[in-house]
Amino acid sequence: MSLIIGIDPGSRLTGYGIIEKNGQKLSFIDAGTIRTETTEMPERLKRIFAGIDRIVKFHGPTEAAVEQVFMAQNPDSALKLGQARGAAIAALVNLDLQVAEYTARQIKQSVVGYGAADKEQVQMMVMKLLNLSIQPQADAADALAAAICHAHASGSMSKLAVLNALGGMARGRSRNSGRRR
Amino acid sequence: MSLIIGIDPGSRLTGYGIIEKNGQKLSFIDAGTIRTETTEMPERLKRIFAGIDRIVKFHGPTEAAVEQVFMAQNPDSALKLGQARGAAIAALVNLDLQVAEYTARQIKQSVVGYGAADKEQVQMMVMKLLNLSIQPQADAADALAAAICHAHASGSMSKLAVLNALGGMARGRSRNSGRRR
Repeated sequence: MSLIIGIDPGSRLTGYGIIEKNGQKLSFIDAGTIRTETTEMPERLKRIFAGIDRIVKFHGPTEAAVEQVFMAQNPDSALKLGQARGAAIAALVNLDLQVAEYTARQIKQSVVGYGAADKEQVQMMVMKLLNLSIQPQADAADALAAAICHAHASGSMSKLAVLNALGGMARGRSRNSGRRR
Repeated sequence: MSLIIGIDPGSRLTGYGIIEKNGQKLSFIDAGTIRTETTEMPERLKRIFAGIDRIVKFHGPTEAAVEQVFMAQNPDSALKLGQARGAAIAALVNLDLQVAEYTARQIKQSVVGYGAADKEQVQMMVMKLLNLSIQPQADAADALAAAICHAHASGSMSKLAVLNALGGMARGRSRNSGRRR
C-alpha cells in the first residue's frame, strides 16, 4: 500500500490530490485547491509552500507526481508558473519526497488511454477510476490525474488493471464520495 | 541595526549575500553561491531551499531582497529561473521574512548611481561599499548588490550617505576581508 500525492501548480490556483494504491486498487483520499489569486507574489509562494507542507504532513504520502511543463506560452507566464512550481516542489523535497514528473501526454495516455485526450475526458476518467460521484475542481482533477499516472507507472499496474477497475465499477462497486471534502 | 539578505536565484547558481546596516554604515557579513548544476530539477530546488533555509537560520536576517525579473529571454529559461526563484523565495517566506523585489535598474542606480551600469561597475562598487579586498563571485556580488539596494531603499540612507561611505573608505578605513569565506 502506498499514498501518492499529485500536484498541479499554478500561480493563481494550485491543485492537489492524494490517492491510495493498494495492489491494483486505487482509492481517493483527498483533493483540493490552494487559492492564491488575491495576494502579492511572495505571499502566493508562501501559501503554496505552506499549503503543500501541511497536506503532506497530514496525510504522509510516500510518493509525489507533478505534471512536467514542456512549453509555456510566453516568458512572463513561464516565470510565474515556474515560481509556483518551485515553491510547490520545494515543499515536497523539503519533506524528503521524491518527485516524479510526467508530461501531459503521459498522464492522458495513462488515465484515458489516449495521449491527446481533452480535459473533460481526463476529468471523467479520474472520477471513474477513483469512484467519485462529485466532479473535482479542474486543478484538483489534474493533480489526481498526475497521481494516477504515477500509480500506473510506478507499480505493476497495467492498462488491463485500469480496464478491470472500470469493469468492476460498472458492476456496482460502492462509492466513497463521502471522503471528498 | 538590521541584517539584510540578498538573493540572486538561478537554476544552476544561486548567489546570496548578507550585510549589516547600522545607521548609515553597511558591513559585509557573508556571501556565497549555492551550486546546483549537476543534479536533476527537484534536487536542485531542494538544495536551493535547504541552502537558503540554513543561511537564514544561521545569520537570522530580518529583511530580504531579491532582484525582480522583468523579461526572461525565452519561456524555457523563464520556467527554470522561475522554479529557482520559487524555491528560494519559499525558503525566505517560510521563515516569515518579508521579501522586497527590486528591478536590475533600481539596484544599479542604488549601488553605482547609474541605472545602466554594467556588471563590472556593480561588482566594483559592491566591493567599495562593503570594504571588501577580495572580489566576490559574480552571483554573490549580485546578491550583495540587491541587499545594498534594500538598505538604501528601506532606511534613511541617502545617495549622499553612500558617497560619504566611499569618502570614508578612501580615507583609509579598516577592511573586514577576514570575515569573507
